[in-house]
Amino acid sequence: MAPIATTQIIPVDDKPVKPASAGYSPDEREQTVLNTMRLLAADLCQQYGSGHPGTAMGAASIAIALYRYQLRYNPANTEWFARDRFVLSAGHASLLQYIILHLTGHAFWSLDVIKNYHGPVLHGPAAGHPEIEFPGIEVTTGPLGQGIANAVGLAMAGKQLGALYNREGFPIVDGKVWCFTGDGCIQEGVGMEAISLAGHWGLDNLIMIYDQNNVTVDGTIDACFTDDTPAKLAAQGWHVISVGEVTNDVGKIVAALDEARTVRGKPILVHVQTSIGYGSSKANTHLVHGSPLGADNLAETKQNLGFDPSAKFVVPPEVYEYFAPVGPRGAKAEAEWTALFDRYAAAHPTAYAELTRRLEGKLREGWEADLPSKESLPADIATRTASSLAIQALAPKDVSWITGSGDLASSCLVNYPGQVEFQNPTTALGDYTGRSVRWGVREHAMAAVGNGLAAYHRGAFLPVISTFLMFFLYSSPANRMAALQRLRVIGVATHDGIGVGALGPTHQPIAVAALFRAIPGMTFLRPADAEEVMGAYLVAAGETHANRPSIISLSRQNLPLLPGTDRNKVKLGAYVVHGDDKAAITLVATGSEVSLAVQVADKLAAQGLAARVVSMPSQVHFDAQPEAYRRAMLPTRESLVVSIEAYVSTGWAKYAHAGAHMVGFGHAAPADMLYEYYGFGVDNLTRRIGEFYHEHAGNLPAAGEYVELLEGRVPNEWALEV
Amino acid sequence: MAPIATTQIIPVDDKPVKPASAGYSPDEREQTVLNTMRLLAADLCQQYGSGHPGTAMGAASIAIALYRYQLRYNPANTEWFARDRFVLSAGHASLLQYIILHLTGHAFWSLDVIKNYHGPVLHGPAAGHPEIEFPGIEVTTGPLGQGIANAVGLAMAGKQLGALYNREGFPIVDGKVWCFTGDGCIQEGVGMEAISLAGHWGLDNLIMIYDQNNVTVDGTIDACFTDDTPAKLAAQGWHVISVGEVTNDVGKIVAALDEARTVRGKPILVHVQTSIGYGSSKANTHLVHGSPLGADNLAETKQNLGFDPSAKFVVPPEVYEYFAPVGPRGAKAEAEWTALFDRYAAAHPTAYAELTRRLEGKLREGWEADLPSKESLPADIATRTASSLAIQALAPKDVSWITGSGDLASSCLVNYPGQVEFQNPTTALGDYTGRSVRWGVREHAMAAVGNGLAAYHRGAFLPVISTFLMFFLYSSPANRMAALQRLRVIGVATHDGIGVGALGPTHQPIAVAALFRAIPGMTFLRPADAEEVMGAYLVAAGETHANRPSIISLSRQNLPLLPGTDRNKVKLGAYVVHGDDKAAITLVATGSEVSLAVQVADKLAAQGLAARVVSMPSQVHFDAQPEAYRRAMLPTRESLVVSIEAYVSTGWAKYAHAGAHMVGFGHAAPADMLYEYYGFGVDNLTRRIGEFYHEHAGNLPAAGEYVELLEGRVPNEWALEV
Repeated sequence: MAPIATTQIIPVDDKPVKPASAGYSPDEREQTVLNTMRLLAADLCQQYGSGHPGTAMGAASIAIALYRYQLRYNPANTEWFARDRFVLSAGHASLLQYIILHLTGHAFWSLDVIKNYHGPVLHGPAAGHPEIEFPGIEVTTGPLGQGIANAVGLAMAGKQLGALYNREGFPIVDGKVWCFTGDGCIQEGVGMEAISLAGHWGLDNLIMIYDQNNVTVDGTIDACFTDDTPAKLAAQGWHVISVGEVTNDVGKIVAALDEARTVRGKPILVHVQTSIGYGSSKANTHLVHGSPLGADNLAETKQNLGFDPSAKFVVPPEVYEYFAPVGPRGAKAEAEWTALFDRYAAAHPTAYAELTRRLEGKLREGWEADLPSKESLPADIATRTASSLAIQALAPKDVSWITGSGDLASSCLVNYPGQVEFQNPTTALGDYTGRSVRWGVREHAMAAVGNGLAAYHRGAFLPVISTFLMFFLYSSPANRMAALQRLRVIGVATHDGIGVGALGPTHQPIAVAALFRAIPGMTFLRPADAEEVMGAYLVAAGETHANRPSIISLSRQNLPLLPGTDRNKVKLGAYVVHGDDKAAITLVATGSEVSLAVQVADKLAAQGLAARVVSMPSQVHFDAQPEAYRRAMLPTRESLVVSIEAYVSTGWAKYAHAGAHMVGFGHAAPADMLYEYYGFGVDNLTRRIGEFYHEHAGNLPAAGEYVELLEGRVPNEWALEV
Repeated sequence: MAPIATTQIIPVDDKPVKPASAGYSPDEREQTVLNTMRLLAADLCQQYGSGHPGTAMGAASIAIALYRYQLRYNPANTEWFARDRFVLSAGHASLLQYIILHLTGHAFWSLDVIKNYHGPVLHGPAAGHPEIEFPGIEVTTGPLGQGIANAVGLAMAGKQLGALYNREGFPIVDGKVWCFTGDGCIQEGVGMEAISLAGHWGLDNLIMIYDQNNVTVDGTIDACFTDDTPAKLAAQGWHVISVGEVTNDVGKIVAALDEARTVRGKPILVHVQTSIGYGSSKANTHLVHGSPLGADNLAETKQNLGFDPSAKFVVPPEVYEYFAPVGPRGAKAEAEWTALFDRYAAAHPTAYAELTRRLEGKLREGWEADLPSKESLPADIATRTASSLAIQALAPKDVSWITGSGDLASSCLVNYPGQVEFQNPTTALGDYTGRSVRWGVREHAMAAVGNGLAAYHRGAFLPVISTFLMFFLYSSPANRMAALQRLRVIGVATHDGIGVGALGPTHQPIAVAALFRAIPGMTFLRPADAEEVMGAYLVAAGETHANRPSIISLSRQNLPLLPGTDRNKVKLGAYVVHGDDKAAITLVATGSEVSLAVQVADKLAAQGLAARVVSMPSQVHFDAQPEAYRRAMLPTRESLVVSIEAYVSTGWAKYAHAGAHMVGFGHAAPADMLYEYYGFGVDNLTRRIGEFYHEHAGNLPAAGEYVELLEGRVPNEWALEV
């Protein structure tokens, strides 16, 4: 075993804020607390005849163990930076979280707010799945498996900040990440990929509670899932604590979590069993998973649990009393931490300043000027290579950047000289200060863990993830969650277009751009040359994107630096890069097809057809421009507008009369040959567009009459037979 | 343990075609064969300066063990139905497969054909990844992890056909499925999900060879992947055979595979180690993964392996001789099987007829008439419920159908009375005759394993997979592979639109339709009512879709049966369902928004604005209609055409002047409230469309001027700040 990297040797005097564990002693109120939570959940589902009562009823003991005894949590300030973070990966059990937030004294989560669960309220906080907009919620969960991966990202962020900023006597970042997962999340590929990463990195600040109640939507899991999960996770580098049945045993859970706190060098799985829907005669069946108990069964359940069947939403005073220590303890911990952080400011002013800047969500001042000037850019490079110039200019100088690849760093070019890898510090490969991440062949987890990094504290990290654009489809459910949650993550997506050579159709992302352009809150950028790549980084990392993910689509093949490109115009979405204002023909293109369009425009001009070229690196930016600008760029009433992009035409009828696009999947062949074969050769485009112009001048296609210029040019094996 | 289901007790007299294992004895030519394969791979990469030599060089011994000794394989007929199936999940190692096909005498795979690897040839068979179109290739691989899942599907198909059709003395379906996977595939979530399923089902006809060479694109795997894979798979119900280093040891692999053949009740992992790029001084590094050796290194490698450094593409005669027994053995096995199958035809004519019908790719004759008539359909049901009526009418009567769900059967309604579950026959849950599949919470594997089912023999299976439309995004990389490979799989995608209530934005698939409509070869259907659901099944299961996957997008909420809908017009893509021909306004809508459009049209008519409604269940079908039909349906020069769909507007400018669409993510709330809030209320739409008409009559928006009618109506948290 390699020596521990020196940056990791941080003798921590952690008395000021640790341990959060309050120490468990038997409490006679506990059963009442458990039953109160169960019946609250059941009542909340019953009121509108909809909801997920079962897990909240079965796993109430877990929520108690966490919030009453374990979490570093101040209900008066759930934004406290040094807090522990809790992720409810089984998001459909959101009631469990709302109820515990309420009972522990979180003012926002009043009983009235929670009563809107599944009610006729628009964007009520007590949503069917926890939503990041609301206090006390770290990430939006619901799509299964994402939460596990997010938790890994939060743990990774904590380890990195701790490694970078903790100093002797100043454990300012040492919170834990607790994740609650059930039988659903644990089956998902994205969760398994993230579990593998956490084990590889040895993230011992991550404690995942697997609540095995053996029931999912369709029934008991023996019908579909027979993995030995503890053994599986042990094989993936996790420390496993098997606890057994804990439905009514808070103490047993607290003890297991106390044990988990002592584990070093591995993430911890705490495996417990609970009885879904406990208290109801429907317990341990899927009937209580996603449906209310029904009035009769609910009344019976109340009787079973010693409550008045006719009363609703009952919280006996001793329940609030039971949780009363939580608030003061959290407030005290926060105050102690704040004092510690003040002393840290004095003792370590440089580190403090840097961390504070990050906590304000700011990148290094003046970073934009570090990008290479247009004059200094090579005349002919792949845009993926230009992207590497941007990353090399920016990432080494700013610790906010954390770049990595899904085993394609050598293709996506996100590495830079002097980088340190984010690795388990017990290896010689790197340590937790490392900002270069080897995600392995795990695209989906890369994006979902990246979301966790971004969610740790908004703006403190700028995660850059990378793979081929094609394989962003694997990660797309997580990219979408980034957009929904407004998390800034940059995707470096190389090998775009069809110019991927022998890799062939499985690697040609001809339909992927359509998805990313369709997702609200997502910026999909396809720069035309190295200069526009710089503009893409100005946009993606810039202030207007503090709350947006981006994907930058980049070429494998070289592209000429175009005289007309301008990094500062990328944010306009589209602008003229070639030709004059009064053109009979306007070619609107993106990425590698822009330089091609310039050649076509020149050929058309040589035939007496004035043509200009509009580069459109970002549709969403163009759509946000004033109408006058949009009409000036793409004057469809005066000029034939033709879109050119080596993807399917989806979305282009919004901008153009006709277009040159792929109409089926591509094939394996060298890029030049493919462009020629599919009709993107300069001569073919010139001929086809010229013909089309002469046919339609004076009678341009109307809305709804968009024409595929390349359809029928080559056999399309994927055409529909009708 | 439950008794074995009787359908499984098939005493198999399998002498006619088993074992395929030829029995290994040391052969002095073997090292020459190994080195010949290595140098062929190295030469093939060197010639065009591109390719993946390393795995082909390191794992040549595995290919030999399989094709020379184990596979039931007739090089003269790789379409032989009873063959073993081999999946190269690590598709980038395609050379390994092409070379072994050539050496074992497959006429198609001449050396000249293989020499086109990475060459300037369009759609050459020797593509960078194996492609299903070419003989001897079972599935197209390349996107990592898919191949593992496809192999699970092939094994599942084999088990099912065996359980349905084998009879005493007639083991007509008992082939094995061999899968080759490397360090990349094994990290992917989709692979892990499929591995979990194979273990759960106990598929002992699946033998997966994990070739751990410890190197992926970016370097050695210790930097990103430290799972103990054998232990992990053992925990997932696999039998593990650990073999060790086998780079030059064919015998050791053959022995392990012989052992694997004896395992019953579990899929088998054969774990071997090889030396990537063996023979080169760059061996065991990522330098030989995806790049040629370089001229000097290649010459040195040839010397190292005892070959003439100046000669290329050398195949000594003894190499062909070594493989000479393969062809006759395969031909004999096929002949014996064919004789057996002929006797089976006589002994079991009914089973023979059914199987033969399936092997011809046909569904049960006259199935279309089994769908409930429009008259018999309820007046107001969710389209997901209508889908269940279709499935109940079709699936029980035709063994080709194999339906299942990713733990949402109770929501997606793909079950039917009397169904038998596909389950490990050692459980009491079902057996291998079962055609109802519990996929668990594994959307991606569901689709990728489904592709394997469909690929076993074209048309023999009609897999129906199901989850919420939103979670088809998880499976989309596999759905795309179905389209690329032209595999018929039907996706039942429920909870479409925004009407998913408290499930909220994480479950609202507002951008997913854009993706599936963009994928060539994919049919995305969004039926307006129960009648159009029947039309959707006529399309998706019909003959014109023998080579296409479909996704049928269905509502959770009830929708009225519309007088104007017609199942037989769904295949037109769009048609008039309401209103007259000379309408000033044409509303084009899909799914749940069609009945809404009908109400809007009536309101507009009441204001003196003649409006008609076009239902557009399938854009790809509409696009395939003659221009005259398309213009007649959506006459944008005479009528204001407004699209209405509760998704983002992506793609609608192709058909309409303006549209009512989502402009950001939705929120959690009851469906009615959401429709109202986002502007889809009948009154709001009527007002907004009426206003727009009056503003633009006589000056309809031109191409490129598509207007979002609902933009600005509600705050859009996801709008771009510019």
